[in-house]
Amino acid sequence: MSLRIGVLGTGMIGQDHIRRLTQVLSGAEVVAVNDIDRSRAEAAAPQGAKVHDTPQALIASDAVEAVVICSWGPAHEEQLLGCIAAGKPVFCEKPLVTSEAAALRVMEAETAFGRRLVQVGFMRRFDADYRRLKAVIDAGSLGAPLLYRSVHRNASVPAGLYTSEMPLNDTLVHDADISRWLLSDEITGVEVRVPRRSSRGGDLRDPTLVLLHTAAGAIVSVEISVNVGYGYDIRGEVSCEDGIAALPNRPAPVVSDRHGIRQAIPEDWRERFIEAYDQEFREWIVAARAGTATGPSTWDGYAATLVADAALRAVDSGRLEPVRMRGKPALYGTPIAAAA
Amino acid sequence: MSLRIGVLGTGMIGQDHIRRLTQVLSGAEVVAVNDIDRSRAEAAAPQGAKVHDTPQALIASDAVEAVVICSWGPAHEEQLLGCIAAGKPVFCEKPLVTSEAAALRVMEAETAFGRRLVQVGFMRRFDADYRRLKAVIDAGSLGAPLLYRSVHRNASVPAGLYTSEMPLNDTLVHDADISRWLLSDEITGVEVRVPRRSSRGGDLRDPTLVLLHTAAGAIVSVEISVNVGYGYDIRGEVSCEDGIAALPNRPAPVVSDRHGIRQAIPEDWRERFIEAYDQEFREWIVAARAGTATGPSTWDGYAATLVADAALRAVDSGRLEPVRMRGKPALYGTPIAAAA
Amino acid sequence: MSLRIGVLGTGMIGQDHIRRLTQVLSGAEVVAVNDIDRSRAEAAAPQGAKVHDTPQALIASDAVEAVVICSWGPAHEEQLLGCIAAGKPVFCEKPLVTSEAAALRVMEAETAFGRRLVQVGFMRRFDADYRRLKAVIDAGSLGAPLLYRSVHRNASVPAGLYTSEMPLNDTLVHDADISRWLLSDEITGVEVRVPRRSSRGGDLRDPTLVLLHTAAGAIVSVEISVNVGYGYDIRGEVSCEDGIAALPNRPAPVVSDRHGIRQAIPEDWRERFIEAYDQEFREWIVAARAGTATGPSTWDGYAATLVADAALRAVDSGRLEPVRMRGKPALYGTPIAAAA
Amino acid sequence: MSLRIGVLGTGMIGQDHIRRLTQVLSGAEVVAVNDIDRSRAEAAAPQGAKVHDTPQALIASDAVEAVVICSWGPAHEEQLLGCIAAGKPVFCEKPLVTSEAAALRVMEAETAFGRRLVQVGFMRRFDADYRRLKAVIDAGSLGAPLLYRSVHRNASVPAGLYTSEMPLNDTLVHDADISRWLLSDEITGVEVRVPRRSSRGGDLRDPTLVLLHTAAGAIVSVEISVNVGYGYDIRGEVSCEDGIAALPNRPAPVVSDRHGIRQAIPEDWRERFIEAYDQEFREWIVAARAGTATGPSTWDGYAATLVADAALRAVDSGRLEPVRMRGKPALYGTPIAAAA
Repeated sequence: MSLRIGVLGTGMIGQDHIRRLTQVLSGAEVVAVNDIDRSRAEAAAPQGAKVHDTPQALIASDAVEAVVICSWGPAHEEQLLGCIAAGKPVFCEKPLVTSEAAALRVMEAETAFGRRLVQVGFMRRFDADYRRLKAVIDAGSLGAPLLYRSVHRNASVPAGLYTSEMPLNDTLVHDADISRWLLSDEITGVEVRVPRRSSRGGDLRDPTLVLLHTAAGAIVSVEISVNVGYGYDIRGEVSCEDGIAALPNRPAPVVSDRHGIRQAIPEDWRERFIEAYDQEFREWIVAARAGTATGPSTWDGYAATLVADAALRAVDSGRLEPVRMRGKPALYGTPIAAAA
Repeated sequence: MSLRIGVLGTGMIGQDHIRRLTQVLSGAEVVAVNDIDRSRAEAAAPQGAKVHDTPQALIASDAVEAVVICSWGPAHEEQLLGCIAAGKPVFCEKPLVTSEAAALRVMEAETAFGRRLVQVGFMRRFDADYRRLKAVIDAGSLGAPLLYRSVHRNASVPAGLYTSEMPLNDTLVHDADISRWLLSDEITGVEVRVPRRSSRGGDLRDPTLVLLHTAAGAIVSVEISVNVGYGYDIRGEVSCEDGIAALPNRPAPVVSDRHGIRQAIPEDWRERFIEAYDQEFREWIVAARAGTATGPSTWDGYAATLVADAALRAVDSGRLEPVRMRGKPALYGTPIAAAA
Repeated sequence: MSLRIGVLGTGMIGQDHIRRLTQVLSGAEVVAVNDIDRSRAEAAAPQGAKVHDTPQALIASDAVEAVVICSWGPAHEEQLLGCIAAGKPVFCEKPLVTSEAAALRVMEAETAFGRRLVQVGFMRRFDADYRRLKAVIDAGSLGAPLLYRSVHRNASVPAGLYTSEMPLNDTLVHDADISRWLLSDEITGVEVRVPRRSSRGGDLRDPTLVLLHTAAGAIVSVEISVNVGYGYDIRGEVSCEDGIAALPNRPAPVVSDRHGIRQAIPEDWRERFIEAYDQEFREWIVAARAGTATGPSTWDGYAATLVADAALRAVDSGRLEPVRMRGKPALYGTPIAAAA
Repeated sequence: MSLRIGVLGTGMIGQDHIRRLTQVLSGAEVVAVNDIDRSRAEAAAPQGAKVHDTPQALIASDAVEAVVICSWGPAHEEQLLGCIAAGKPVFCEKPLVTSEAAALRVMEAETAFGRRLVQVGFMRRFDADYRRLKAVIDAGSLGAPLLYRSVHRNASVPAGLYTSEMPLNDTLVHDADISRWLLSDEITGVEVRVPRRSSRGGDLRDPTLVLLHTAAGAIVSVEISVNVGYGYDIRGEVSCEDGIAALPNRPAPVVSDRHGIRQAIPEDWRERFIEAYDQEFREWIVAARAGTATGPSTWDGYAATLVADAALRAVDSGRLEPVRMRGKPALYGTPIAAAA
């Protein structure tokens, strides 16, 4: 009765998803794994799971009903196309793919197949705080959203490994996707401003201020800081015509002691979003059992790719770089109308 | 592989637990039900579950590995003793039993059996906010707890059906249990003070102020208000030697509009504690599969019974009514030492 | 045009009030001082102020229009009676007097005089936070107040000098007065409960939990802790029939750093109530210029004396000790009607 | 002994300052007034104050020691130059002057005089919340400021009278000045972005998003919304290298009722900044009595003029418009060094 899942890529995130699928959630079991490093795959495989030599073999296996892709980004396109060809639901970690052209190829394959099969790993959409924020916006009592502020602060990034492109390529995509989702809107242009650098990051370009312009005319300002030291601090605040709505503090005990009246801040994204990851897979399992996908789509992954590309151009040009999306296939829902 | 569960009592709470066990959680299935109203049992039974004519038949059934008791309080003792006699793990909703003598009989049966089988439904212990609060206290950096304040406010109670004994008999038990658990302490005496009544409740004795005295010398003040109208508002604040720790606001969006800067308050206990109920059963299933119980115990149910009895005496006497517990069986952990 | 003030007692608080009257506020000047230690009076006297040998000489001086009493408590009665005999407005620091009999003698003298001349130094009534809280209660939209919680936490008290009577004699009076004022009610009985002692205070009886019963039937619980270490933390929360209103956090910057999201707590009463002291004297000067007094009255000082006396009895008796006030003279406003 | 003040301009703000100087504060008296509408001046003049026919006559009067300018902006330059020529301290409401050339003329006159005489009415610098925020930044424990967010939300503006230039000309100057002061930095460039308009304001360009670039490389984002309806909501948050500091909520009672857990928002700038205005004049009086000025200077007024000019250019050009200040005269303190 459980959904039989194959996992491609058994690095840190792959291992974590295997743990989630086997120990935390119901309705699923991991029956197959593959990794470029076979010994790592063997170590990560749950008891009874088959270790495949190639992604293609795993995808093709009759024992596998649905696939979770946790391999590195450049491998995603081929694996996604394989899953679509096999008609198997697939959860793909970010990034969906690494180029616009690749995103379009996946989208064309899926639309040709005629049913959604792909869910991209934008887990914030499953976070209870974000969902309640969206519910407030969607209820409409605050009027139309005009401005959104997204704050993305990491405690630290690995010195040397983390480059100045990564805030735009890896981090911004979360803010871009959650903005599109919260505002039910599309991003049409990107500007990047670079303030004085934090001395915590050496030569790293950090922090970064990004402005996203939307089809409806809203402006999203994104503050990305990847070396704040004090914790993992995610904030969101929407200014609507008749009021404001913001993410609350995380529900830590309110302690009064010699450091003041205070609440702890999450240490990292794992602590902050652990329930969101669980919920993300809970809903994916339900959809995958029904042979489809319902969460963030190929279209959303395509949008994120275009925004990241535009942001990288914008940091060089210093100008507003347009995001030009192709027409939205009906498979992915109603298009966003541009503002009158 | 799933735990095969029989449910006794298929009223509102029984139906909710059946939903939880069958639709939300993994690792369990409901294979048998019984209710004093057979048609209600039939309506509540999941597909494939057997409807038993008597609680005894359900408990005795080989198909049933563990039991969930949601019948009314007076029926609990016999059902609990039946489960213990059958050696089957049993989850029992509050109240454990309705008299001290009954609690002692269950405790004696369980200690004679020699392994914990009973878990009582004090779901607050599984709430993430309370758990984080306890973690702060237990960490010890704030010093010993001296005072605890527990606030229990219900939006409303059914007029006519809800009597003036119920705040002490049904509501206080939650505050008493969570206080014992948070402070790792036992209650040794109860005082009740009755202020001016709220005009919202007619003749109902409401609110009520209760003082619980503990073995370690801490004092717990409990404010019970069952007709506040505005929501279900649960608060807790512990005053330790070197600082204070309190439950935070619930994580609702922070909205600024013409009503001010504000966060919504839960409407009822279902909204407030839904995750706690899920977690309660998640952990019970793990323990029950191992043939035992790990959450709130018969000892805790016994303590709650004594506190409610003392509170009812105290409201009449106006005095400090002692809570005299028998010696704590080793099965239920280390006894609390009285303050020097 | 300025009010010409004489100050009796030039210890710490007297010096602070001289500073306030001469450097901070308008409309007043200190023209005379007296202290039991003449050299201290000389050091504290502003330029041009006369140093009197006795309180009586200062009070009688034609140059003095109004008097501020900052001497020690046992000297207050004679000085107050002297001011009333001279028909001069007088501000008197807490305690008004040190016995019920003395309070009655002052009250009789003032009522015989026929106009209010005395203001007692309950500065909390002039604090903006408390005033806004009272405004919410008085607006009536939350319904009648049923319970009030007053929390009074001092960072520390001088070891050895601070005795176990002082939380009831010196500290509780603030909570009692502010409760009477917030609830527009009188206190009719006092209970004291003593939990486990804080190890921070050695043998000191600390913390203390006090219950004040009011004429209208409300119950006030007061948590007094005088050695919390972390700051000066004053809290108040009223439970009304239809909602709750509480003092907010002090408006410190919200800092997010490695200690969490936090706001600083005041270090001591000076930091917490400095604006209240200024406002207290601002309003006193206006009334004194008009030859009268408008703030906390002799009646309020009398009530505080009775509550402190009852609290000291209650800590010994363990019982509810009644507070029996004489009939309220019309000079002090409308009496509080007891609950039906 | 009091500072003898002449007030130029007795409209709404002039009348309010006359009330403040005569009824609230000590150490000052209003001895002369002038207004373009003589009857308005006569109505506003305190008892005993002389009504002058011209600003020049008031400034020249021997009875006037210091001047408060509340006339309309275009009249400021001549009045300021008159005060400087007379060597009299002068408080000037915003705007200092209405063109860069005028600002330079005033600055040259004051520097030629050789002592500061002019204080500009940027009252936010005297607000306790902003001062505590600046204290946190200046303490340095959070590291260098990298980003600052200033939110400026008005409940409403007069339809028809309020034009689309005014958010940049009249409103932004407050955010610009407080940013310069908080960050101890100068603004070197301005960008303006215009999102979708709020339907509350009809054709009004509202809200507006402004980016201010500073000499040290910080970026200030300013959200200006002048028709939010729900209140007057002023926010500030600085992102430093090691942490964040933000203005707190205003200290309104925390009410729990059917609208949630909530705090009231100020209705307008008067309610929000009334204490700041008092403190502004309190400090001005002290400096003026000493024949000089210490608050926001001609240099600050000059900077505000340049920023407003640049903002108006930026809204048309869509580009980063530079702010080019002349060298800072020593009279106005140490220049800000540009970032390396």
